[in-house]
Amino acid sequence: MTHENLLSERNALPSVIPERLQAQLTFIIEVDKLKTILRQSPLAAAERRENDAEHSWHLALMVPLLAEYSDEPIDVAHATELVIVHDLIEIYAGDTPLYDTASADGQEERERAAADKLFPLLPEDQATRIRALWDEFEQRRTPEARFAKAMDRLQPFLLNWMARGGTWTTPGVTADTVRQRKSDVGAASTTLWEAAQALIEQSQDRGWLRPPEAHAQHPTH
Amino acid sequence: MTHENLLSERNALPSVIPERLQAQLTFIIEVDKLKTILRQSPLAAAERRENDAEHSWHLALMVPLLAEYSDEPIDVAHATELVIVHDLIEIYAGDTPLYDTASADGQEERERAAADKLFPLLPEDQATRIRALWDEFEQRRTPEARFAKAMDRLQPFLLNWMARGGTWTTPGVTADTVRQRKSDVGAASTTLWEAAQALIEQSQDRGWLRPPEAHAQHPTH
Repeated sequence: MTHENLLSERNALPSVIPERLQAQLTFIIEVDKLKTILRQSPLAAAERRENDAEHSWHLALMVPLLAEYSDEPIDVAHATELVIVHDLIEIYAGDTPLYDTASADGQEERERAAADKLFPLLPEDQATRIRALWDEFEQRRTPEARFAKAMDRLQPFLLNWMARGGTWTTPGVTADTVRQRKSDVGAASTTLWEAAQALIEQSQDRGWLRPPEAHAQHPTH
Repeated sequence: MTHENLLSERNALPSVIPERLQAQLTFIIEVDKLKTILRQSPLAAAERRENDAEHSWHLALMVPLLAEYSDEPIDVAHATELVIVHDLIEIYAGDTPLYDTASADGQEERERAAADKLFPLLPEDQATRIRALWDEFEQRRTPEARFAKAMDRLQPFLLNWMARGGTWTTPGVTADTVRQRKSDVGAASTTLWEAAQALIEQSQDRGWLRPPEAHAQHPTH
């Protein structure tokens, strides 16, 4: 985790603004950094990688549109809140690519340290609330967290489909690796999991995704 | 409005996916284009302009954090929904810069045509619902729409503050132009409007924003 300066320190906010609002604006300015955290996924609409802010917006739009497919009833507004905040800690912890097992080392610790740094910029009540949302998402204990996680897996999956490969071309990745890594979709929605399976099969048929190896060796686990 | 092809036409979805879900996925893939619609606002965290998807995410985070300052009680989840969808039509209609009066000509018509093209990609019930959200935002008839619009004005305002000018350097723009264009903030929140005024005054003092002209001529209106 880098110990960089807060963005708002560049231009101190006028002292006439109430302290609570200053804290909120400081946080709101700081999270602009999420727009600079690049993911591995290629955009469908342009020749560049996606960033975390774009990804988070995309999930927030998907939640209400696909909520009908959740196997458990969910509070749509609550699941939306979860996806809006779910990647914030990557501002300090960075993105951990799904198919890169080396960078997964220490991820949990790195992300917890980032949360400890970022959320307390807010007034205490809001810091506590946003931290609870992030913990809920990470732990997937609620139907809303499970559905939010399913969207987090399905969205880059659709981008790989559109890119005719994308991060599926990572060395060692086969159709079985993808099925394994995308199992969070199945944990939340039978219908969406069936659709994902159909996309995996067609991708394999079209040569965008390597077939499972004969002896089912998974180089990344 | 351009009559470009749908992104999903590049890779037809497997026919085994149910028709309703195919329509939803087609829409979800198509809106990837929002990530390519550039706004005038400079990011605080990087040397480039912001895009509509990043902007929409930023508003979705601001709504719950600043809702306590709304002069009228608001349903936070509903206001969040409004900001998530508010710029979707720019996928086909493009962004209309706030301080560019020439490009405002025909904006309403252009945006309505874009809505007529984009939303019907969804199943009818969802198309109707998302269209209603967009209309509500545009018409600002509800407290939620007024607060969402205030966020839409406040966010680029904060980016201009961080950039020590940003789009305030547009020819003809003075502190009075900014006050006038940002009045939507005041329509929703006295506290946020006071904070905005403090930022405008300091920006003027620091030379980031031209003072009002002696005879109060507003070149842009």
